[in-house]
Amino acid sequence: MIERLSTFFVRTLREDPVDAEVASHKLLVRAGYIRRQAPGVFAWMPLGLRVKRRVEEIIREEMRAAGSQEVLFPGLLPADFYRATNRLDDFGDGIFRLEDRKGAEYVLAPTHEEAFTLMVKELYSSYKDLPLSIYQIQDKYRDEARPRAGLLRGREFTMKDAYSFDVSDEGLEVSYQQQRDAYERIFKRLGLDYVIVSANAGAMGGSKSEEFLHPTEVGEDTFFIAPSGFAGNVETYQSTPRPAVEGEHPEPVVFDSPNTKSIAALVDHLNEHVEHPEGREWKAADTLKSVVVVLTHPDGEEELVVVGIPGDREADMKRLETSFQPAEVAPATEADFAKNPALVKGYIGPWSSEGPVLGEESVTGIRFFLDATIADGSTWVTGANVSDRHAMWVTVARDFTADGRVEAAEVLDGDPSPDGSGPIRTARGTEIGHVFQLGRKYAEALGLKVLDENGKLVTVTMGSYGIGVTRDLALVAEQNHDERGLVWPESVAPFDVHVVATGKNQEAFDAAERIAAELSEQGLEVLVDDRPKVSPGVKFSDAEIMGIPWIIIAGRGVADGEVEIWRRADGEREAVKIDDAASELISRRNAVLR
Amino acid sequence: MIERLSTFFVRTLREDPVDAEVASHKLLVRAGYIRRQAPGVFAWMPLGLRVKRRVEEIIREEMRAAGSQEVLFPGLLPADFYRATNRLDDFGDGIFRLEDRKGAEYVLAPTHEEAFTLMVKELYSSYKDLPLSIYQIQDKYRDEARPRAGLLRGREFTMKDAYSFDVSDEGLEVSYQQQRDAYERIFKRLGLDYVIVSANAGAMGGSKSEEFLHPTEVGEDTFFIAPSGFAGNVETYQSTPRPAVEGEHPEPVVFDSPNTKSIAALVDHLNEHVEHPEGREWKAADTLKSVVVVLTHPDGEEELVVVGIPGDREADMKRLETSFQPAEVAPATEADFAKNPALVKGYIGPWSSEGPVLGEESVTGIRFFLDATIADGSTWVTGANVSDRHAMWVTVARDFTADGRVEAAEVLDGDPSPDGSGPIRTARGTEIGHVFQLGRKYAEALGLKVLDENGKLVTVTMGSYGIGVTRDLALVAEQNHDERGLVWPESVAPFDVHVVATGKNQEAFDAAERIAAELSEQGLEVLVDDRPKVSPGVKFSDAEIMGIPWIIIAGRGVADGEVEIWRRADGEREAVKIDDAASELISRRNAVLR
Repeated sequence: MIERLSTFFVRTLREDPVDAEVASHKLLVRAGYIRRQAPGVFAWMPLGLRVKRRVEEIIREEMRAAGSQEVLFPGLLPADFYRATNRLDDFGDGIFRLEDRKGAEYVLAPTHEEAFTLMVKELYSSYKDLPLSIYQIQDKYRDEARPRAGLLRGREFTMKDAYSFDVSDEGLEVSYQQQRDAYERIFKRLGLDYVIVSANAGAMGGSKSEEFLHPTEVGEDTFFIAPSGFAGNVETYQSTPRPAVEGEHPEPVVFDSPNTKSIAALVDHLNEHVEHPEGREWKAADTLKSVVVVLTHPDGEEELVVVGIPGDREADMKRLETSFQPAEVAPATEADFAKNPALVKGYIGPWSSEGPVLGEESVTGIRFFLDATIADGSTWVTGANVSDRHAMWVTVARDFTADGRVEAAEVLDGDPSPDGSGPIRTARGTEIGHVFQLGRKYAEALGLKVLDENGKLVTVTMGSYGIGVTRDLALVAEQNHDERGLVWPESVAPFDVHVVATGKNQEAFDAAERIAAELSEQGLEVLVDDRPKVSPGVKFSDAEIMGIPWIIIAGRGVADGEVEIWRRADGEREAVKIDDAASELISRRNAVLR
Repeated sequence: MIERLSTFFVRTLREDPVDAEVASHKLLVRAGYIRRQAPGVFAWMPLGLRVKRRVEEIIREEMRAAGSQEVLFPGLLPADFYRATNRLDDFGDGIFRLEDRKGAEYVLAPTHEEAFTLMVKELYSSYKDLPLSIYQIQDKYRDEARPRAGLLRGREFTMKDAYSFDVSDEGLEVSYQQQRDAYERIFKRLGLDYVIVSANAGAMGGSKSEEFLHPTEVGEDTFFIAPSGFAGNVETYQSTPRPAVEGEHPEPVVFDSPNTKSIAALVDHLNEHVEHPEGREWKAADTLKSVVVVLTHPDGEEELVVVGIPGDREADMKRLETSFQPAEVAPATEADFAKNPALVKGYIGPWSSEGPVLGEESVTGIRFFLDATIADGSTWVTGANVSDRHAMWVTVARDFTADGRVEAAEVLDGDPSPDGSGPIRTARGTEIGHVFQLGRKYAEALGLKVLDENGKLVTVTMGSYGIGVTRDLALVAEQNHDERGLVWPESVAPFDVHVVATGKNQEAFDAAERIAAELSEQGLEVLVDDRPKVSPGVKFSDAEIMGIPWIIIAGRGVADGEVEIWRRADGEREAVKIDDAASELISRRNAVLR
C-alpha cells in the first residue's frame, strides 16, 4: 500500500508542544502522530493510528497463541458493577462518573474485572466450561490527578485486558504463566526492554502479582534488582529486620536546639554544640525523623499517625501506601496539625521528659510506627515535643514503644536485598504490563460459582492481565529516538519505507513512484514524499522526525540512474541503481529482521 | 483459522431476552453474539466481534477507495467544543455530560464535527492543502430517551464518521458524491437493501442532506417513493399547495354538539343531527382539527401554538419539528392548557361568534398555523371555542387568517408526489447512513479559514458522512434470518464454514478436523463443533441459530466415507465424499460469491 505526502493528513511541527516534558510526547506530536484534545486525551492522526494498529496486532497474535479469545466490552458501565466489589470507593476521584437522563449512575470503565466476571457467571455453570481466558483491546478512562507525559499517563487510553477463569489454584497458575509468557513475547516483538518485578496488587486485590517494568528515566516507578537477579517494585521491598542492639545507653537528655526544624539544621547544631560520644561527626542517620501522615480508611474515616524513620532517608509515600493498605496515605496538612496541637511541628518525637507522647497507649493516643529498619535498643536524637528542643539517647523499646513496624523509608542503592543475595541496585521504570492472580475475590463478591466434578458448587479463581497499549507505544518511541526524531523498530513502524523524491526534475519523482510501486507489490507499506516545491532539506528533516526505518532518496543521482538507501537507525546512506533499489532495500531489511 | 466449540466462548440460549422486541436483538443475544450490559449498551462476544470487524473492514476498504484517510478521535471531549457551535444545547438531554475531578466539563461525543474542524484548523492553512477527507470508526454515545431494539437504537454504538473539507462549493459537491458512491458500494457489499431519500439536516445544520434508509417494518422512520423513483423522508415531504376554493359559503353557524371532543364523536353527531348540504354523509375530512403544541425556541423560550389540520389526518410530530426548526416541538400538556384558559379543550377553533380567536392578530395572540394542504376559501366544521359547541361554514381567509402554512399532517399512501409524478407510496425504514453538505456552518463558528489562490482568507466548506456500524450490523441480521436463526451473508459471516462432528464415533471427529484443516489452509475461517457428548439435534440447532452460511456435517455417513454439505440459506443438504468435501464446498461457495 502506498500513501503520498502531497495528500497524506500529516503536518510536522517545528516547536515542541508547550506542555511536553518527555521525548515521546514531543516527537509524537511534532512528527504528526497524535494531537492533544484535552489534558491526557489525544486524537490519532493517520501515522499514529498505523503504529497503534500494528502494536495491537502483535498483542492479538500473542493473545491468540496464549489461548485467549477476543471480546469487547463497553466503556460505559453501570456504577453498580463496581459498587458490588467496593471498588467505586477504592477508585475514588480516579474514576469518571456520570448520570444518564433518568439519573441512573454510570462510570467510564477504568478496568473490567466485574463486567467479565458477571458475563461468565451468566453463561457458564460447570467445571467443564473452564479454563477460560478472554481479553479485549479497549479504551479505558481514569481521571488522573496529574495527566502527564503525553500518552504515558493519559486519562483516555487503550488497554489490553485479559481475564482468566479456573476451578483450581493449579489451573490459575497455568493460566497466569500463559499470559506471563505471552507478555514476554509481546515486549520482545515491540523491542521494549523490560524487567519483571514482584508488585503490590493494590486496588486489584488478590494474592500474587508481577509487573513488567520498562527501565526508563521518565518512569514514575522505582524498582530494585538484587545480585541474584531477583527484582521488585520498591513498593514491595521488604527491609531486613535488624537484630536488637545490645548494651546500655544513658538516660534521655533534653537539650536546647533553636531553629532546628530540619534534619540538616539539627545535624549542624549537634556538630557545633554537642560532642559525639564516639568522637566522630554527627550524621543525619543518628537522628529519628517523625513523619506525620493521614490515613483514609475504606470507611472514609481519617486517622493521623506518625512514622519514625532514620533521618538520612526520605519517606516513600507509595511504600507507606502499601504498608497501610487498604487505607490511603497522604502527608498531613497544616489543617491536620492545627487539629492536633500536641504535635509540635519540627520537634516531634515519641518521647518527652514527661514520658512517651506518641503511641496508642500514650497520652496523645496518636498511633506511632517505626520504619522496619529500626532495631529495638537503638538510640536516637529526636524531637522533645517542645519547641526548639530535641532529646538524645532516646532508645527504642526502653523509652517508648511503637505500635508496629512499617515499610516507610525510601529504598536506596546498596540496601540489602530481601532475598539475602547482597546489595540491591535501584532504577526508574514505567509499568508496561501487569499480571495478577486475583484469586477468588471477584468471583466471591459477584457469586461466580460452578459445579465441580463431584457436583459441588465451587467459587471460580481468576487472573487479570493488563497491557497499556498506548503507553507502550509511547515507550517504544521513547526508547527509539535520537536528537533528530523518531526511529521506529520495524515491528511497529507506520510504514516500512519512506521514498523521498527531491529536486525539480520529473525523472526523480517518476523513479520514486516506480520504486514505491515495486516495494508495495512486495507487500511493503510505502510512504512517498511527492510534494512539489518542498526543499530537500525539509523533506529530509521530515523523514528523520517521522522515523520510518528505511528511506530511499530519489534526487540528483537519478540522472545517473542512481538513488540512495538511507537507514534511519544508523544514518548509513548508500547509492544503488534505481532498478535494484527495491530488491536491495528488501534484502537489507530482511537482514535486520532476521 | 480454526476455532472449536469445545472451548469457544459462546453459549446459545433457548429463551428470548425479556426486553427484546425485534428479531435481530433476540437472535444476536440468543446465538451468543452480544450481551446487554445496560439499557442500550452491549458487550461483544467473540462471534459478534468477528462480524463487527468484517463490517468495519468493508467500510475501511470503501473509505480508502473514496480517498478518505483514517484517524481516531477520543470519546471524551471538552464540552466547550460543542458550546462553540451551540450544539450543547441542541443535543439537550441526548448528550452524556460529566465533570472531571477539577470540575472541567466534558461530554461523551455523540458526533465529532467540532473536533475534526478544530484539528484541520490547527494544521492546515492553504487551499493547496485541500480537498481533505478524513474518517474514523469509533464508539459514540447518545443518551437516548428510549434505547430499544438492541443494537438498532443504542446508547453506546460504533459509527463511521467522515468529514470533508473543501475550498469551493463545487469541491464539496465532488467530496459529497465520493462518499455517497462509497455508501452505495458499502451497503451492496453488506447485502443491505436501501433507498436514498432527501432528508432533514436537523441538528447538523447545513444545506443538503440525504439519508440511506433500509426499508424494514422495525424502522422508526417513514419515507415515500414517487412513481418517478423520487424518494424522501416524510419529514421532508412538501405538500402540493391547493388552489383557492371559488364560490360563496354561508356565514358561520354555531351549533350544540355535546360530548364531541373527538373527531369521531363529532362526525357521528353531524350524521345524526345535521344534514350535509350535498346530501352525503359527513366525513372526518369535513372537519378542521386544532392541534396544540409547544415550541421550545433555541433561546429556551416556550411558545404555545395551534395548528389546524384536516380531521381525517393525524399530526406528524417529526414533520412539525422540521417545519418549526430550530425550535423543538412537543404536544401541549394539561399544564399548558391550564396556563391558557382561552383554549377550550376539545372545542378549539380559529373562529368564534365574537370573531377570530386564534392568530397573532386575534384577541388571544396565540399563533395559528394551517396544514399546507388547506386551501384559502375552503370551509370547515370546527370548534366554536365554547364547551360542547362547534361551528360550520367556517371559511379560511374569510372568517379567520392563519399565521402561515406548515407541513403538519401525516403523509399517507396516495398523496401526491412533490415532483408531480403521481401518487406516492410510503414505507417504514431505518437510517443506515446519512450524508450531509454542512457548508460553512462549522468552519464559520470555529474559524476554519485558508488562504485561497489570491492570498485571501476564505472559509472552508465541509461535509459530514455517517454510517451506524453496529446498527447496520443488526439490520443485516434483521434482513437475513428465518424462524430457526440467523442466516449471514458471506460478506460479514463470523466464520465461512461451520463443521459439525456428531455421534460417538471418533472417525467423525477426525474427519471434521481434517476437513476444517483443509478449508483453513485455503484461507477460510472455520468453526468446528467438536463438543463431545452433545446430541446431533443440539448441534444442528446451534448451527442454525448461529447462521454461518455453510455447514458440513460429519456424522454416520463417515463410516461410508461421506459427509453432508448444508447451505444455511436454502436448507439444501447433499452428501459428498470426505476427500472432496473441502473442494466441493469451496466451489459451491465461489458460485454464490460470483
